[in-house]
Amino acid sequence: MGALHAGHLALVSKAREIAGPDGAVMVSIFVNPIQFDRQSDLAAYPKPLEADLAACRDAGVDIAFVPEPAMMYHADRSVTVTESSLSKTLCGATRPGHFDGVCTVVLKLFLLGGCSHAVFGEKDFQQLAIIRRMVRDLDVPVEIIPHPTLRESDGLALSSRNVRLDPAQRADAPRLRRALVAAREAFRNGERVSEALIGIAGREIEASPLTRIDYLSLVDAESLQPVDRVDASAALATAVFYGDVRLIDHIGLNPAGA
Amino acid sequence: MGALHAGHLALVSKAREIAGPDGAVMVSIFVNPIQFDRQSDLAAYPKPLEADLAACRDAGVDIAFVPEPAMMYHADRSVTVTESSLSKTLCGATRPGHFDGVCTVVLKLFLLGGCSHAVFGEKDFQQLAIIRRMVRDLDVPVEIIPHPTLRESDGLALSSRNVRLDPAQRADAPRLRRALVAAREAFRNGERVSEALIGIAGREIEASPLTRIDYLSLVDAESLQPVDRVDASAALATAVFYGDVRLIDHIGLNPAGA
Repeated sequence: MGALHAGHLALVSKAREIAGPDGAVMVSIFVNPIQFDRQSDLAAYPKPLEADLAACRDAGVDIAFVPEPAMMYHADRSVTVTESSLSKTLCGATRPGHFDGVCTVVLKLFLLGGCSHAVFGEKDFQQLAIIRRMVRDLDVPVEIIPHPTLRESDGLALSSRNVRLDPAQRADAPRLRRALVAAREAFRNGERVSEALIGIAGREIEASPLTRIDYLSLVDAESLQPVDRVDASAALATAVFYGDVRLIDHIGLNPAGA
Repeated sequence: MGALHAGHLALVSKAREIAGPDGAVMVSIFVNPIQFDRQSDLAAYPKPLEADLAACRDAGVDIAFVPEPAMMYHADRSVTVTESSLSKTLCGATRPGHFDGVCTVVLKLFLLGGCSHAVFGEKDFQQLAIIRRMVRDLDVPVEIIPHPTLRESDGLALSSRNVRLDPAQRADAPRLRRALVAAREAFRNGERVSEALIGIAGREIEASPLTRIDYLSLVDAESLQPVDRVDASAALATAVFYGDVRLIDHIGLNPAGA
């Protein structure tokens, strides 16, 4: 979607490493209209194309694919990729159609690009799980490479949205990571009950007058369905508003590796 | 779907011609469970695998792909290709989900097979239009090659279902083709009003006590939406029951080439 930051460029570095000297690294920069449920969000989305292209050049990208919307979507388009399970929880619960738009554009980009591998950030945890599911269910011949979330030194996950926080919000925002780490500590000390783990993280987030929780859920790592207890690999995921800026973060809880 | 007849083998010949001596021809034989709306139809579908494989060998097929359903569909599958416009008319009107099942399996077979071209019979007119639409909308890198309908000498379109007609039904069934040709004659003589053209074909079909019309529609050749007048390329399409055997046929009406 462009507006590239260091988190995106880490994905490019990973792709460069996989491609090796003989392979090509492609980046798509496309603010995908069909994944926006509100047209005002689409219009307001930043499009710093010159800066993005310069960053791509510096990072060793071979091909930047920057299509016009009219090239990607016919006016009478009628075929969509739909996901009916993983997309119903977390961010998908309040954004109907969003992940269908994501699946559709990602499949199109894969097929147009003819790529063998694709690197996705773990930051967009639900998106990554859904794309993996699409690749599995539709036999898409692309290997999905996850890449860990990059963070500021105070723990805040890198996001294009962070620049929209005011100084007080920005100073407060590492609270999300702190809340999730506190829950993981309790998990590592033996707590397995979701309600207790959610309570620990929730109290930390709600201790600030600046936050408003959109969701805070403990879900199975693969199905993304809520669980009552953590008996298999799971994730504690949250979306929090600071004013109208919505930040997401999550942390893995793995009983095997606890 | 197997149960191969001369119509299928004509598609294989066409594929053999396109592939040339250095290319490979692949046939998939798979009775796709997710395109059946009734499980009894699925169970009753003929599966003469040995005869099909022998026919493939004789026709110069290089690879027959005969997957098990469990290999194609995970129990928790949740990603589907959906078509929201062309699939709502004609056969799709009474078979909700059928063409989504077709699109999903065809995309999977394309991606598993890695094919450059795929040959489809024009007999399944709506299926062909929907697959072309899917290829366009999802940027699937496969060229779709249509192949004309094969017919018995009396005009009946070849279909695996023809053997299920009793002798009286079989003798009557060329009526479908006759009805469509009569409408095309009127079209060539200047008739452009859909109601009149449908009336001509409908009277011929309903003149037999053995027939029951499922649909008889005049639709735009690309959008498959009903038209009141034939001012652009169109098709008169019908599905007719003989007892519980449902036959389909269609005929093109092209103002430019009338």
